Amino acid sequence: MIRLQSRGYEKLVQSSEFEVKFTGAEANVGISYANYGSPAFVVSQVPDHDIGQACINYLRRYGLDTTYVARGGERLGILYTETGYSQRPSKVVYDRSKSAFTELDISQAEWESILQNKSWFHFCGTAPAQGPRALETLVNGLKVAKRLGVTTSVDLNYRAKLWTREQAREVMVQLMEYVDVGIGNEEDCEAMFGIKAQGGDFRRGEIDTDSYVEVAKQMVDRFALKYQAITLRESISANQNGWSAIIHDGQEYYRSPRYDVHLIDRIGGGDSFSGGLIWALEERHDPQFAIDFAVAASCLKQTIPGDFNLVNKADVFALMVGDGSGRVQR
Amino acid sequence: MIRLQSRGYEKLVQSSEFEVKFTGAEANVGISYANYGSPAFVVSQVPDHDIGQACINYLRRYGLDTTYVARGGERLGILYTETGYSQRPSKVVYDRSKSAFTELDISQAEWESILQNKSWFHFCGTAPAQGPRALETLVNGLKVAKRLGVTTSVDLNYRAKLWTREQAREVMVQLMEYVDVGIGNEEDCEAMFGIKAQGGDFRRGEIDTDSYVEVAKQMVDRFALKYQAITLRESISANQNGWSAIIHDGQEYYRSPRYDVHLIDRIGGGDSFSGGLIWALEERHDPQFAIDFAVAASCLKQTIPGDFNLVNKADVFALMVGDGSGRVQR
Amino acid sequence: MIRLQSRGYEKLVQSSEFEVKFTGAEANVGISYANYGSPAFVVSQVPDHDIGQACINYLRRYGLDTTYVARGGERLGILYTETGYSQRPSKVVYDRSKSAFTELDISQAEWESILQNKSWFHFCGTAPAQGPRALETLVNGLKVAKRLGVTTSVDLNYRAKLWTREQAREVMVQLMEYVDVGIGNEEDCEAMFGIKAQGGDFRRGEIDTDSYVEVAKQMVDRFALKYQAITLRESISANQNGWSAIIHDGQEYYRSPRYDVHLIDRIGGGDSFSGGLIWALEERHDPQFAIDFAVAASCLKQTIPGDFNLVNKADVFALMVGDGSGRVQR
Amino acid sequence: MIRLQSRGYEKLVQSSEFEVKFTGAEANVGISYANYGSPAFVVSQVPDHDIGQACINYLRRYGLDTTYVARGGERLGILYTETGYSQRPSKVVYDRSKSAFTELDISQAEWESILQNKSWFHFCGTAPAQGPRALETLVNGLKVAKRLGVTTSVDLNYRAKLWTREQAREVMVQLMEYVDVGIGNEEDCEAMFGIKAQGGDFRRGEIDTDSYVEVAKQMVDRFALKYQAITLRESISANQNGWSAIIHDGQEYYRSPRYDVHLIDRIGGGDSFSGGLIWALEERHDPQFAIDFAVAASCLKQTIPGDFNLVNKADVFALMVGDGSGRVQR
Amino acid sequence: MIRLQSRGYEKLVQSSEFEVKFTGAEANVGISYANYGSPAFVVSQVPDHDIGQACINYLRRYGLDTTYVARGGERLGILYTETGYSQRPSKVVYDRSKSAFTELDISQAEWESILQNKSWFHFCGTAPAQGPRALETLVNGLKVAKRLGVTTSVDLNYRAKLWTREQAREVMVQLMEYVDVGIGNEEDCEAMFGIKAQGGDFRRGEIDTDSYVEVAKQMVDRFALKYQAITLRESISANQNGWSAIIHDGQEYYRSPRYDVHLIDRIGGGDSFSGGLIWALEERHDPQFAIDFAVAASCLKQTIPGDFNLVNKADVFALMVGDGSGRVQR
Amino acid sequence: MIRLQSRGYEKLVQSSEFEVKFTGAEANVGISYANYGSPAFVVSQVPDHDIGQACINYLRRYGLDTTYVARGGERLGILYTETGYSQRPSKVVYDRSKSAFTELDISQAEWESILQNKSWFHFCGTAPAQGPRALETLVNGLKVAKRLGVTTSVDLNYRAKLWTREQAREVMVQLMEYVDVGIGNEEDCEAMFGIKAQGGDFRRGEIDTDSYVEVAKQMVDRFALKYQAITLRESISANQNGWSAIIHDGQEYYRSPRYDVHLIDRIGGGDSFSGGLIWALEERHDPQFAIDFAVAASCLKQTIPGDFNLVNKADVFALMVGDGSGRVQR
Repeated sequence: MIRLQSRGYEKLVQSSEFEVKFTGAEANVGISYANYGSPAFVVSQVPDHDIGQACINYLRRYGLDTTYVARGGERLGILYTETGYSQRPSKVVYDRSKSAFTELDISQAEWESILQNKSWFHFCGTAPAQGPRALETLVNGLKVAKRLGVTTSVDLNYRAKLWTREQAREVMVQLMEYVDVGIGNEEDCEAMFGIKAQGGDFRRGEIDTDSYVEVAKQMVDRFALKYQAITLRESISANQNGWSAIIHDGQEYYRSPRYDVHLIDRIGGGDSFSGGLIWALEERHDPQFAIDFAVAASCLKQTIPGDFNLVNKADVFALMVGDGSGRVQR
Repeated sequence: MIRLQSRGYEKLVQSSEFEVKFTGAEANVGISYANYGSPAFVVSQVPDHDIGQACINYLRRYGLDTTYVARGGERLGILYTETGYSQRPSKVVYDRSKSAFTELDISQAEWESILQNKSWFHFCGTAPAQGPRALETLVNGLKVAKRLGVTTSVDLNYRAKLWTREQAREVMVQLMEYVDVGIGNEEDCEAMFGIKAQGGDFRRGEIDTDSYVEVAKQMVDRFALKYQAITLRESISANQNGWSAIIHDGQEYYRSPRYDVHLIDRIGGGDSFSGGLIWALEERHDPQFAIDFAVAASCLKQTIPGDFNLVNKADVFALMVGDGSGRVQR
Repeated sequence: MIRLQSRGYEKLVQSSEFEVKFTGAEANVGISYANYGSPAFVVSQVPDHDIGQACINYLRRYGLDTTYVARGGERLGILYTETGYSQRPSKVVYDRSKSAFTELDISQAEWESILQNKSWFHFCGTAPAQGPRALETLVNGLKVAKRLGVTTSVDLNYRAKLWTREQAREVMVQLMEYVDVGIGNEEDCEAMFGIKAQGGDFRRGEIDTDSYVEVAKQMVDRFALKYQAITLRESISANQNGWSAIIHDGQEYYRSPRYDVHLIDRIGGGDSFSGGLIWALEERHDPQFAIDFAVAASCLKQTIPGDFNLVNKADVFALMVGDGSGRVQR
Repeated sequence: MIRLQSRGYEKLVQSSEFEVKFTGAEANVGISYANYGSPAFVVSQVPDHDIGQACINYLRRYGLDTTYVARGGERLGILYTETGYSQRPSKVVYDRSKSAFTELDISQAEWESILQNKSWFHFCGTAPAQGPRALETLVNGLKVAKRLGVTTSVDLNYRAKLWTREQAREVMVQLMEYVDVGIGNEEDCEAMFGIKAQGGDFRRGEIDTDSYVEVAKQMVDRFALKYQAITLRESISANQNGWSAIIHDGQEYYRSPRYDVHLIDRIGGGDSFSGGLIWALEERHDPQFAIDFAVAASCLKQTIPGDFNLVNKADVFALMVGDGSGRVQR
Repeated sequence: MIRLQSRGYEKLVQSSEFEVKFTGAEANVGISYANYGSPAFVVSQVPDHDIGQACINYLRRYGLDTTYVARGGERLGILYTETGYSQRPSKVVYDRSKSAFTELDISQAEWESILQNKSWFHFCGTAPAQGPRALETLVNGLKVAKRLGVTTSVDLNYRAKLWTREQAREVMVQLMEYVDVGIGNEEDCEAMFGIKAQGGDFRRGEIDTDSYVEVAKQMVDRFALKYQAITLRESISANQNGWSAIIHDGQEYYRSPRYDVHLIDRIGGGDSFSGGLIWALEERHDPQFAIDFAVAASCLKQTIPGDFNLVNKADVFALMVGDGSGRVQR
Repeated sequence: MIRLQSRGYEKLVQSSEFEVKFTGAEANVGISYANYGSPAFVVSQVPDHDIGQACINYLRRYGLDTTYVARGGERLGILYTETGYSQRPSKVVYDRSKSAFTELDISQAEWESILQNKSWFHFCGTAPAQGPRALETLVNGLKVAKRLGVTTSVDLNYRAKLWTREQAREVMVQLMEYVDVGIGNEEDCEAMFGIKAQGGDFRRGEIDTDSYVEVAKQMVDRFALKYQAITLRESISANQNGWSAIIHDGQEYYRSPRYDVHLIDRIGGGDSFSGGLIWALEERHDPQFAIDFAVAASCLKQTIPGDFNLVNKADVFALMVGDGSGRVQR
């Protein structure tokens, strides 16, 4: 998708220039992951014209392997965004009907070749919402992943503008069968599966962490997951958020520290969490390390313009060991 | 007026580009009002050259009807601005001598035709400060407004760089005779009419709301107003303010909530308050609703670059019902 | 439509910012016309979101009345453009499937109210190419226009990416029945009606003006037009063109001077010709004056960034009386 | 003066940013001169606020000594400019009423101190047009210059928007008494003194050089000048001009080569000619060298954005010895 | 290398922003080649910090494989550039002492692994000028290339700021032993090997093509080349050049058409010629096709900002079959 | 040095434009000082090319006298910077090997002439770190300063990327012999002289002011200083710092107020402290006034983009008397 963003803090109705960025939940996760030093690939489709090529260029610039991005379909979906501040919320206008991605068609045989020698398969809940062909392509991939022993993860990422809760639930329940690691934010599990935190009201920025421990546990139990991670965002204002997460392995739970983040660009924050979590779980198989790494990484992402997390391992480690004081590195 | 603003947080002495905006207290009020869905007109004059035309273009872009903007006069006044931050205050350099507005000359007969079928007439205290012709034009308009039963309002808006307190008082006392609704900020009533709040020291950002209730009441009593509203700004730093207001109808007073605003551009904040107040009073005749709407609207304005409030009703209502958490709208 | 343009002479694949302009053949014609001092309206539809509003804002900024622009439909069509130079041609990537315009639905009764007291109805050949609903709405309008005695004109504007020659011909032949004034470029009459110039090869930038006189005459005769005008572009390079036009009234033909134009932005050149021609024909009913005015106006347009012709009458007259020397106006 | 320029080739009515440059005929001449390695001073006045300071900053950045720039007066004059292209002329909107310069007041005693140890005094015909006080200050300076043996020069620079031909003539005739070196363009001598070239029509870009030789001779004779130089601009289009000059010493005349200049910014072209001429006359006292140097220098200036000639001696010499081929210097 | 370029046509001394591009002769050739659809690799070294990473990002964005770019060395070389216009030449300020490239150290064994399964090895004459280590690394590579049967080519690219003619000759004569295809411009063969064209004077933009046919033949004969190609640039002005080339295979010579190019950015023109030539020779082994393709490709490059040729095969073919008229592609 | 800064809050790896600023510790101090109305000079060297000239231009723009800046050496050092936010620290990439400054060579005789009639000589600890020639030049200057009775000061400014603690100590101990006023930040005295604060941990943003009083006293005693000032930065986050300072005259200590600064650009903060301190000590010889002035001045600097403190005396006094509320100045 193209992300066309009004300049600075301008509103869409007043901006004479849009910054051009390209995004996509899975691409964001992949680039975040690639920054830590491991190869990452994206499977997708862009139209065979200059805007499609510009998308390819943008992704590979930041280290994502675009070998599996097909050329086809009519158009690239668009995300118009304006950045909020203080009491004014950020705004997103979607324009993604008939995007090239909805026509992506990959058979199980093709997935066999793609997933050969790969270790992890991640998707986002916005992908199956793109329609029956996208869903079928995804199911094909998940089946092959399971067959090949590739670990699978999902970021639930419920979006009310894409489908109703009922539609989402019906589809996602099927898909959870193939999933090893679940990731969600403070509202996803309730929206998609009716698993509701008992305390706090996230709509007002109140988070009761303990309630979410219980939500995570129910997710693991219900879908036989290896892990369920939940990010917890306390919306203090459009430019200041609390940020933390928990992870549950069915037996224990692990909490990250909480960061008080002053935001530059929160879009892509969840994706950078997923990217950090996957890398950290592969690296050490230690849920405490993983949740700490993923939260620190995604905290940093939210101080960077654009959807991509452009920090490396050393940057994340520096924050994890406590230097959140922002002293100049020189 | 043209507003020429240094880029970002640059100072005027270092900027190689100025952003070009057009402004004017009454135009700002009109555009704020128009955004809620009602037609708004401005009565003014710009020079008959390309900069005058650029001003017209800018105003109508944001929905203001410029039918009553005459072409004439020599030049457009200028406002050079730089945006402060933290302990550094914003700065304004005025260059408005001999602006086209000072030569605006409208007879009562012309006002009759302009005000036909209009419901509200608003002016700002900076207008009569532009000299005798502007004052005469204004008095002509106010007389016709009263005759036609058009509601009138004033935003006192005392500016020490335009006239002395004594000059302002002499003129404004005459004009208040025609005014139904008075609007002012924490220092206007004292500066213009010697009606002083007894508590707090706004120069240090300290506001004693109760004192201002008394000020508002005195205004209503003295000038036989229908309402007097007072905005209350607590200057914590150049980029953080407390923001609230009160309104008095001679019998009761009504307080708005107080917002802790992180500022993008506070210029035009008072005008957007007036625009919100007028619209809300016309819509419901409920002072509590009006003051709440006006404060929420002008809180949002101060998070938007430029003098105009580009939010719509739905945006203001969302903040009024409590969602100041700035969650992304998607 | 939104026009998203790469910066300066950058290609779409390398640009990190797009300039945001809004365009549409009929809007371009209307704004060109309005600049000469007469009111102009556009009938269209934009989605009811901030991008739709930004489009409205943009059009009214330049003086077009947007009263008849409905809010509805899913998305605004997009035109990605990069500006060519020397041997490198300009490029356009269309993304306009399912745009709000295709869902515009106006009955004859509604047209009655819109066209009341209007004098001219102009449309472009790209409008009926948008699908059956757009066509029906257009036919409704043309029928009402004829009934009310409103003059009608069409800019043929064949676009191979929108429809085949056969599709275009079938539709356009029907529409020509309602048309008074035909406008086309050096390839339209051949593409749409098979009326071919016998000399020159415009694909190589060679124009045989006499051949086009014959084409224009055939158009007038075949469709019982009052006038047929044809613009003649000699493409010397991507930034240098010869520019002239002819008009035929069935009896006589009239040629404009030829300008050697160094181009800043040729998109919208044809529309500014139509705007100038309509204004000039209404003003004086003199085909020689009209073709001279229209060509001079559209010559100037091609030296201005963006789709709109932002010159006024005086600017065009100055060029017509011979001052093409570009001396500074001071 | 501030020069506020619309971006790129945008028109003033469409630009959302103005580039900020500071200019002034004498300052332009001084900076051009300073670039060749000799110290240059400007005598002027700017308001005592941040815009005045920004002007000082801008001038000294490019090497002009601002020691004699007083702080005072109300405002800085403004020049709004848009850059033309092809058939579209550049446009200038002046806003300089009541500028600080008009209030500049320097006595002969002060001039004594300023002109001590200086070798050349240059002024421009736009200076005395600023009103009686500016004229008196100028006459004071010229008298002192003569007394101290400082060479004086004037660039006639007639501007119809500043004064009528009659007003200009009356004033300038008085001033010519103190002038050693006269400089003018193809229309100045006619406009100010009625000395008219007999051939060609510069309004159409036609220049008859021989006629101007005669004009120059008459100037030298009439005002007992040491030299009269005349620049000759052939306006082919807004972005292409022929550029040459002649100089006459009362006995002989000298012609420069003619350059076919593709223009980036022609404003300041005449001033850079004056700067080059003064430097070259001081350097070698050879009129052929001087006119060649001045024309080459001012040719280069017109390929540079902004009013200042930012080339050095080596750059000018390279062009003079024939390398106008624009090969990369590396 | 980083290329830091002043904005638009500004000079380096006046620009407040530099556009950031990354370049390098071999990288430019590789990206040009990659755009035609074949994989291209670059062998180089960048420092292990964020500027080095930005370089990697930039190259892979445009499709170059950076697998063989090592991290090491102290700094990245810099090229400050300003773009000339008309009589004002473009300027380049080099700052490349001690760049990371000079410390690149690759043994024959490492080259064995790099060149496995590659078909072509290209280098530029600026590489061995970087010092003894760079030269040794290059010789290692050339030896391995010969051993593996990889075709080799050189773009002579003599730069007087890098080494003297004598130094260049001594080194290059050794290297030519390993070269199959020689490429040079109108001055290289004379500067490096004393093989001089007998007619014309390229310093004044005069090119005598026949003389260069002879030069090419001598090159083939002397160094037993398969082909020698020579590009011929006629510098009409800083923004207009004639552009053509010849190639000789020892028996026959082949001339390309000549393009009159209006330049946007000529830097990288020669590299895009090399990229086109290599691709075309590999594709068809037809020298006429190759020289035509390479010249058309590099003509287009010079109309694109930046060092890279961002056109694809279809774009080049369109120009080759004659459409240099720059008609909009829509 | 050139400071090349990524745009806004972008990281270096993603920015397509760098803002160009020129900087240098001593230049920053000089410009800060000059803004208060006293002349300031810088002694340095820049290469004799356009980038060197751009540096000169930049410094004199802001009021620094560049008479003593020699032309010579190969290159200008570079500082690439990206601005951090919240938990993300600012980053600096140095590229200053072999910069022109390292080749600066000034004899005692030359210093005699430079320091004639000057009152203060300031240097920064980064200067002697540039190598033996820079050190020798500095020692020459300090000796002459002592001889002429010029007050000397040093900002210790230890930078681990320039030299080790041991190297720094060895050099600095020698230099302190000539120093009257020492300036340092919370870590310098420990790094360079092993004089360590006993409380707090500045690496975590904790400052124990009392401990630093003791450090200052030890500095005065050990090096027989007239004053030792220490700035105290509490790093709360990358965009929020506590800022205060102390000064000790060997007998008493004086504390400034503490400001909670929201940062725009903290680079140059220490230099603006030095500039303010020197000016204030010269102005009144009152350490309390001096430390208050210097801290207020440098607080303001950190809210301004770029290395230079562009505020004047009035701005600093306004903050000192308590108006940190950032109310608009109008």
